[in-house]
Amino acid sequence: MRKFVSVLMLLIGGLVMAQEKPVKIVFDVTSADEGTHQSTIRHVKFMSEAYPESEFEVVMYSKAMNMVLADKSSVAKDIETLAAEGNVSFKICQGTMNRYKVSEDQLIKGVDVVPDGILEIIQKQAEGWGYIKEAHQ
Amino acid sequence: MRKFVSVLMLLIGGLVMAQEKPVKIVFDVTSADEGTHQSTIRHVKFMSEAYPESEFEVVMYSKAMNMVLADKSSVAKDIETLAAEGNVSFKICQGTMNRYKVSEDQLIKGVDVVPDGILEIIQKQAEGWGYIKEAHQ
Amino acid sequence: MRKFVSVLMLLIGGLVMAQEKPVKIVFDVTSADEGTHQSTIRHVKFMSEAYPESEFEVVMYSKAMNMVLADKSSVAKDIETLAAEGNVSFKICQGTMNRYKVSEDQLIKGVDVVPDGILEIIQKQAEGWGYIKEAHQ
Repeated sequence: MRKFVSVLMLLIGGLVMAQEKPVKIVFDVTSADEGTHQSTIRHVKFMSEAYPESEFEVVMYSKAMNMVLADKSSVAKDIETLAAEGNVSFKICQGTMNRYKVSEDQLIKGVDVVPDGILEIIQKQAEGWGYIKEAHQ
Repeated sequence: MRKFVSVLMLLIGGLVMAQEKPVKIVFDVTSADEGTHQSTIRHVKFMSEAYPESEFEVVMYSKAMNMVLADKSSVAKDIETLAAEGNVSFKICQGTMNRYKVSEDQLIKGVDVVPDGILEIIQKQAEGWGYIKEAHQ
Repeated sequence: MRKFVSVLMLLIGGLVMAQEKPVKIVFDVTSADEGTHQSTIRHVKFMSEAYPESEFEVVMYSKAMNMVLADKSSVAKDIETLAAEGNVSFKICQGTMNRYKVSEDQLIKGVDVVPDGILEIIQKQAEGWGYIKEAHQ
């Protein structure tokens, strides 16, 4: 019975999610930790599939540089795939790239450069986007 | 004298807080770290006592699963007590429960299940709730 | 050519930033980690110089006590300098000071005390300020 109720809740949950009105979420990633990079991708992947009408943006700056480097990221393939799907975008901070002496040709395909990561996030918030900080300690 | 001023400031602070208009705050917890679980409880406990007319919601997902497991949480008793008081609620993400293969009967009494932790937070933000990410690194 | 494009983007980026309308940002710091203190200062310093018409507030509570202690902070000089410049303010939570048995004369010059760090942040959000959680794990 308990199992039946759990399955039912999952189904209802799925239904509720499918019927939700579209959301817009900006994710803030500043961690060098690959576990945080992978959690972020899991969250964005799940949500962009559950809410295809919604929009998602992942902004990386500070210590998250490696997350978008083609030869260092542990989530390179996922970023390239998600970025191609239309409702997810990935933005790296130009200031962070300068600090790490990274040029655009080192970035994973599909990642865009913004002049300032924090400003990008704040502008999204000002436009009514929801905000999620990805940090796991 | 300095001590007197400090005491006075505390009193004035308490008065200011007591007179504040009600707030609504959603706390985002994704950490497996017990220190972060305990800090979260300290914050929520303090605020819910200082502002009894206000509303607080703690949303747990990602790596915070243990925080709401009756046999693993370091704050089980606090959660049960706070959840019974009326102005604090605790929500765990169904997706996270699935990932950790947890069933509802393993949860601390008073913890509710929501279909999606991030969506829950974003919806609260859209309704005007304030947002605090609990993370301490 | 690639280098030229990069330099051009930087220039355009700088121009775009210089022309942005003023923003207001509240930074939430709860970490004991000096790396996080230094990242926070780097972000605030950069932004307050890039956007002199904008307003910035750094709120410290929970485990961030040392960040504002004159004899323990790794960013004491920066805080004092930034606080004197007019568009950046630093607030420490009175409750956190009490918990660490800190008195006001131990604080870096220019740091203000607020009754409650979380309430301060939530009130800024309610007034339309953007929110950035500083956390790097």
